[in-house]
Amino acid sequence: MTYNELYENIRKKGSFLCIGLDSDLRQIPEHIRRNSSEPLFEFNKAIIDATSRYAVAYKPNLAFYEAEGADGWRQLAMTLDYIRYKDPSLFIIADAKRGDIGNTAGLYAKSFFENLECDAVTIAPYMGRDSVEPFYKYKGKWVIILALTSNPSADDFETLPVPGVIQILEDSALYESDPILYREPNYSTEPLYKTVIDKAMKWGSTENTMFVVGATRAIKLAEIREYCPHHFFLVPGVGTQGGSIADVARFGLNNRCGLIVNISRNIIFASKGEDFALAAARKAAEAAGEMCQILSRHQMV
Amino acid sequence: MTYNELYENIRKKGSFLCIGLDSDLRQIPEHIRRNSSEPLFEFNKAIIDATSRYAVAYKPNLAFYEAEGADGWRQLAMTLDYIRYKDPSLFIIADAKRGDIGNTAGLYAKSFFENLECDAVTIAPYMGRDSVEPFYKYKGKWVIILALTSNPSADDFETLPVPGVIQILEDSALYESDPILYREPNYSTEPLYKTVIDKAMKWGSTENTMFVVGATRAIKLAEIREYCPHHFFLVPGVGTQGGSIADVARFGLNNRCGLIVNISRNIIFASKGEDFALAAARKAAEAAGEMCQILSRHQMV
Repeated sequence: MTYNELYENIRKKGSFLCIGLDSDLRQIPEHIRRNSSEPLFEFNKAIIDATSRYAVAYKPNLAFYEAEGADGWRQLAMTLDYIRYKDPSLFIIADAKRGDIGNTAGLYAKSFFENLECDAVTIAPYMGRDSVEPFYKYKGKWVIILALTSNPSADDFETLPVPGVIQILEDSALYESDPILYREPNYSTEPLYKTVIDKAMKWGSTENTMFVVGATRAIKLAEIREYCPHHFFLVPGVGTQGGSIADVARFGLNNRCGLIVNISRNIIFASKGEDFALAAARKAAEAAGEMCQILSRHQMV
Repeated sequence: MTYNELYENIRKKGSFLCIGLDSDLRQIPEHIRRNSSEPLFEFNKAIIDATSRYAVAYKPNLAFYEAEGADGWRQLAMTLDYIRYKDPSLFIIADAKRGDIGNTAGLYAKSFFENLECDAVTIAPYMGRDSVEPFYKYKGKWVIILALTSNPSADDFETLPVPGVIQILEDSALYESDPILYREPNYSTEPLYKTVIDKAMKWGSTENTMFVVGATRAIKLAEIREYCPHHFFLVPGVGTQGGSIADVARFGLNNRCGLIVNISRNIIFASKGEDFALAAARKAAEAAGEMCQILSRHQMV
């Protein structure tokens, strides 16, 4: 999917909502667990039927399928097929947070883009460029790189100050034979997540790269939007984690939307009873309604 | 498995070899692909039969199983069962490089420790403590945290200088309402991977935490060993990637070994013909022989 196609889908639906299919088997309504041999799929199907008109994207979180082993993988594949059957314009994000060296990353790319036919996959950047590049070989597919996440311990590493202007020094005495170039900080520093964004903007383009920026740090969105004006951001953390759609839009919107806001538990587990799909539809409709107003205020719908 | 149990297995076998089951279907000998409906398992079984006497650990790389979907997961589970059947003392590492927030990380822990019954799982540290802690709930299980990896682009982020002594400043003017504490670098800096190790040493202990340190950076092992004297290191990058067992041991050994050296392709794909298992056994025996001599020189066998 191209940037423009995604943007047109957002305009058509008046929504930039992504629904996170964090379908934890232990939290799925009891009547489904009791009566179905494919409870993850049955649950997802009902959620998709109830919410697809309000969403532009779905984001299954791989952990919840892997936890059920081979059977979980099968139900994940069934879910993805069902999303495409329901509405081929839906953007599918494999929330996998993978990151490994070249030959391995290539296999992950094959899994998510060829076999599962997802549109995008989330990637952890720690190992650097090697671990992202194999994903760029697939035209029309997207990598979504973790930048500033929504969890409290994001500050352990993501916000550490690193040199803004890199000065390369070689300490020939100690590390003569070492290929690592030692860098010393100049006076200006920036948080690590900014360096991640800076570098990744050069690896890919606005047509194949998005960044994860947590809604719990909405004020940071403004700052990030300034040096990254044209990219899409995938924004988790609205709902259970405390972020708000209004803040995210206020700080993160660009002139072609540039935002996909994910809500998971607040929608899919809005009710644990037999009315779960209806409850999910209500929550999704509410979020999409708020988004439509925002898009309308900015003349995008 | 405890540290001591692992160390005793190393002494008993005279080896600290881990064999990486990077069982890429496209590289598996043709006669297996042609004749078996479970080629990943058949290949792994033959490799395990041929090499288990030389190895203390096996490390299946999840990407190569996920690439075959639900069927790949089933063959992964069969492989793990077979490793345990062959020799219950073998240490099993799920090379998954996962890393996600609390509730998701908890599900990954369940997958790898409960369902697949692995002894250890590799973790990407970018998201911080939240993403590691759920794994510590399983007694006798290990997390292996990426510190300094063996790939060329490790320098993109892992070696960036961050403040060695952290000074916490609050910029009240701009970020009054922001929960992130702004930190400015003091004069002393250290590479990011050192901060990762420093923090993770406090999250866990020598009984449940190891670090990944690439063999391609053997000289760094000495430096890391200095501030992290008692932990096990998982060392990839020997063989195809260019590291040597001798260098790794010279710089990384501690008084209870403290090293697990992984070799993948150089062993499992030593031959692509019908003699692949024999060729793998020869390569594994060669590596284990070198390790035995090293352990013997240090009076550990």
